[in-house]
Amino acid sequence: MKVLIVGANGQVGKHLVSFIQDHKDLEAKVMIRKEEQASYFKDLGAETAVVDLEEDIPALAKAAEGVDAVVFTAGSGPNTGADKTVLVDLDGAVKTIEATKQAGVKRFIMISSFDTSREAIQSAPSSFSPYVVAKHYADKWLRATDLDYTIIHPGLLTNDNGIGKVNAAYEVERNEIPREDVASVIVATLENDATIGKEFQVVTGTNSIKDEIGSL
Amino acid sequence: MKVLIVGANGQVGKHLVSFIQDHKDLEAKVMIRKEEQASYFKDLGAETAVVDLEEDIPALAKAAEGVDAVVFTAGSGPNTGADKTVLVDLDGAVKTIEATKQAGVKRFIMISSFDTSREAIQSAPSSFSPYVVAKHYADKWLRATDLDYTIIHPGLLTNDNGIGKVNAAYEVERNEIPREDVASVIVATLENDATIGKEFQVVTGTNSIKDEIGSL
Repeated sequence: MKVLIVGANGQVGKHLVSFIQDHKDLEAKVMIRKEEQASYFKDLGAETAVVDLEEDIPALAKAAEGVDAVVFTAGSGPNTGADKTVLVDLDGAVKTIEATKQAGVKRFIMISSFDTSREAIQSAPSSFSPYVVAKHYADKWLRATDLDYTIIHPGLLTNDNGIGKVNAAYEVERNEIPREDVASVIVATLENDATIGKEFQVVTGTNSIKDEIGSL
Repeated sequence: MKVLIVGANGQVGKHLVSFIQDHKDLEAKVMIRKEEQASYFKDLGAETAVVDLEEDIPALAKAAEGVDAVVFTAGSGPNTGADKTVLVDLDGAVKTIEATKQAGVKRFIMISSFDTSREAIQSAPSSFSPYVVAKHYADKWLRATDLDYTIIHPGLLTNDNGIGKVNAAYEVERNEIPREDVASVIVATLENDATIGKEFQVVTGTNSIKDEIGSL
């Protein structure tokens, strides 16, 4: 299965490309913003497409042509300006979803935020709420499509080494999760079609990733 | 007809409240953010509701109870920070739409931006594009409801005195329009149910507002 990774140059993205390239049944195509980011991924044997998420849908659709799944793990993050939050986390995500449809690809995995509900918007600190709003609408957009989607809501991301153990369910208690384990969760989701049409929160925990994703 | 005006304290809003209070068939209820804004509107004989657009949907629905139409003319404007653009122009608009539905009100008039198409997003200067994105998704949200909506796309707003003459159609050539004339266009739209389910661009022009809105 060939997987387009949008946001490959991010911290979760880099772990993910590495895991995919080590996986016997998967291969990565990475979407990156700048040509100078390409050599890192070429060294891993991944195909590269240089496209900025602020470009239009046809440019994104071209990158998605010929792949079997799209993973959206791009993010301006909660600490960039709200302008980039709107353009990347909301509009970039929606354009990627539309581009996936245009390219005839069915499988789509969205890396969302831990809680993107209306309640989360209303209770977020004001500096964080534009980010939650952006993720809220991007998730809503995806749910309204007929793509084979999964929405992953990871807890607070850390740079700790992955431990390979998580708790995952529609709702779990808020906790941290290493970025490396999020990447493993994405791989387990790609491997398991029972996750299609589902969304789940995931934090560091006690069960093996494969078993926990399998039990969703 | 009783009309809730969301964004009454804005420049278009103030003209609108004044026109509505002078109209024999219309009365205004204004939604304002701060109690100290109330006396201006009470002097015009308008009912007031103090609700911040960043509050949740039930608070907005309470303001919409018992009215016959809702006009959304709130706007952070393109010159506030993108954080307010997300919270007011996108999420505030969507919450107002949902609140209108919850309150059982059918008629909804959205004051949008001149061009909120995908093409307008892609061609906007980067400082302006978050605003266009926000208005794009708010308009999309409204179109997907079963409300009796009209979306008004005014040209570049000026503080000139209204001249009472406009050009309006699904697409017109980009031009200015006095805020006072936008308020008159809203009144003409409220008076004309043939505008339900339609959207139009409107700029200063050569035809009387009533005739031009009547010809849509």
